Amino acid sequence: MSAHATSRPKRLVILGSTGSIGRQTLEVVCGLRERFQVIGLSAGANATLLEEQAREFRPRMVWSGSEGERTALAAASGADWATLEEQAAHPDADLVVVGTVGSAGLMPTLAALRAGKSVVLANKEVLVMAGALVTQAAKQGGGELLPVDSEHSAVWQCLWGEEGSAVRRIILTASGGAFRDYSAEDLARVTPEDALNHPTWEMGRKITVDSATLVNKGFEAIEARWLFDVPLDRIDVVLHRESIVHSLVEFVDGSVKAQLGEPDMKLPIRVALCYPERVAEERESRFDLVRTGALHFEPPDMRRFPALGLALKAGRLGGTYPAVLAAADEAAVGHFLAGHLRFSDISILLDEALSAHRAAADTDVEAVLAADAWARAYADDWVQTKV
Amino acid sequence: MSAHATSRPKRLVILGSTGSIGRQTLEVVCGLRERFQVIGLSAGANATLLEEQAREFRPRMVWSGSEGERTALAAASGADWATLEEQAAHPDADLVVVGTVGSAGLMPTLAALRAGKSVVLANKEVLVMAGALVTQAAKQGGGELLPVDSEHSAVWQCLWGEEGSAVRRIILTASGGAFRDYSAEDLARVTPEDALNHPTWEMGRKITVDSATLVNKGFEAIEARWLFDVPLDRIDVVLHRESIVHSLVEFVDGSVKAQLGEPDMKLPIRVALCYPERVAEERESRFDLVRTGALHFEPPDMRRFPALGLALKAGRLGGTYPAVLAAADEAAVGHFLAGHLRFSDISILLDEALSAHRAAADTDVEAVLAADAWARAYADDWVQTKV
Repeated sequence: MSAHATSRPKRLVILGSTGSIGRQTLEVVCGLRERFQVIGLSAGANATLLEEQAREFRPRMVWSGSEGERTALAAASGADWATLEEQAAHPDADLVVVGTVGSAGLMPTLAALRAGKSVVLANKEVLVMAGALVTQAAKQGGGELLPVDSEHSAVWQCLWGEEGSAVRRIILTASGGAFRDYSAEDLARVTPEDALNHPTWEMGRKITVDSATLVNKGFEAIEARWLFDVPLDRIDVVLHRESIVHSLVEFVDGSVKAQLGEPDMKLPIRVALCYPERVAEERESRFDLVRTGALHFEPPDMRRFPALGLALKAGRLGGTYPAVLAAADEAAVGHFLAGHLRFSDISILLDEALSAHRAAADTDVEAVLAADAWARAYADDWVQTKV
Repeated sequence: MSAHATSRPKRLVILGSTGSIGRQTLEVVCGLRERFQVIGLSAGANATLLEEQAREFRPRMVWSGSEGERTALAAASGADWATLEEQAAHPDADLVVVGTVGSAGLMPTLAALRAGKSVVLANKEVLVMAGALVTQAAKQGGGELLPVDSEHSAVWQCLWGEEGSAVRRIILTASGGAFRDYSAEDLARVTPEDALNHPTWEMGRKITVDSATLVNKGFEAIEARWLFDVPLDRIDVVLHRESIVHSLVEFVDGSVKAQLGEPDMKLPIRVALCYPERVAEERESRFDLVRTGALHFEPPDMRRFPALGLALKAGRLGGTYPAVLAAADEAAVGHFLAGHLRFSDISILLDEALSAHRAAADTDVEAVLAADAWARAYADDWVQTKV
């Protein structure tokens, strides 16, 4: 391991650096300055924070969704302006952290993998939309997909030293989200503020709402299907309130492995960035099973949270259906957060979008992007006409 | 993995074949006849069962503690008479299962490891008595130690694909044994029958009593220290009533892995026999977190169960102290099962034996065997004079 420690720092490109994953990635990097050098930063919004980050980390490349910030950013950091795709495929990049949200990460992820980069993938919609294309790009380009979602990081760690053919079943745990104890009636009345109040995890706004509908767990099942090449019918979901057991793998001999830890995204980020090393976290161990006392497991309630079942259905249908699911959900969550849609309407919208969709013959990038655009338009129209 | 499946069967020697581990090993082998060939069987007692086993598995070598059975065994199986050590070191043996109890396994284990055999070690006193010698023999002979205790199998599986230097802490789980909910007063009155009524595991008599005193968990901490080269002060014990989480490993980056499963010794036996493959268990999966519902974790009560603390103390003292602990315990449990000793006297006897012991300068095999003999004599004497 000393070979790693003494080699040159890994050069990081962070797409979506002002989002929850981007900020936490930079926090992790701060504690490991000798190991990582940030060469690219980008953000869709929040130009002020991006400028601060650029000043601190002195990347070579920046990009902001606010084109007007271009001059200020260049002045702050001396960095060149480079699009997400340019940054992702840059010859000097070793590791590309895709911390964008929604469909924004798809093309940069494909660009990075085609260029043979290792991709730390936090943008879950990328694999949901285009899992076949993304895993194919990784195979062809020689790049590696490193999961950073706590659930997939858990599965991944449980698979270290194991043969893929030894996997019988993946068991994804779900906290249950903000409304796990709400009745169907209560669910009809919840506000965006209620939905953003997650019981165990601090995350971005969109994913926090997705956790509350449980569609997020369906996304994760689809992601797991692609990341670990395990069919959806061998991926189960179990409700686990404490968010301590991050997921489990059952092997063909009946043995089960789990990965555990306090709910803190910085752990899976650290694991992915440092892979294949485990780098010491100096802080005193906080993991304490005795203090936790008990870990609970329940079946998810597919009736109160129909979006989970819809997501799994889209995953089983395959083709462009998962892209429709992801795009319709992104639009629906936007409308919900803007106050244009009730919480319980999100799953109704998803259901109707999936029913209305006609899949393309081929599932190439064009078809995926067309399905994405169709679903967004469908969702916007749905909100205007039905609500 | 197909290379393994098509290669010749592994040749097994099973020492202690009529005990709990021996019988369960043969059950596992029965389901995997194309993978294993039993070439040696032996048992200290229960000549009738040994004869049955010899008839069924047709080993080349047998040995029975009842010398008078020699002719009958030879007639039943056509096998040659060979001592435990001869069987363990036999040139044709690939894998030696040490399923003996107490100190009986030490010399055969050393013989097997020196001959470069892989040893499936269920006889925990072997590592407790002579961990340094045994691990040294493995290193010198090139043999491998494969754990089969559920706890050590769990730790071992969690370490597949990990660097030894990445381990921060081992967390051994304990069911708490038959008396986990007994008060100190109740403990003074329990009978051997009470002690043999383990809440979650079916095991041999001696280990079931050792579980009730919790000395077993101290033995396991000492074993783990040797098997995984982790100092005792980084091995913790946590009470876990359900016996579903078999043990955990915390890594330096804060990540924790656990191995889980129904409490069934056949799983770790299967894992050790088939290593490095995982061989499919055809029966429907029985692992069901939702049915289990909750997993509980508590600190062990060192006051009600002082034998655990005594065992850890012996482990920290090192040298011949752990051999004294193991031998005094074996004698004490024998006296308790025979009705000569109260349950609460077991730990008093262990405490006084450890205090009375004067460690030898060197911890070679002779010193270990001398400490073992001294402790047995001390225990017998203690029972005669103090009870």
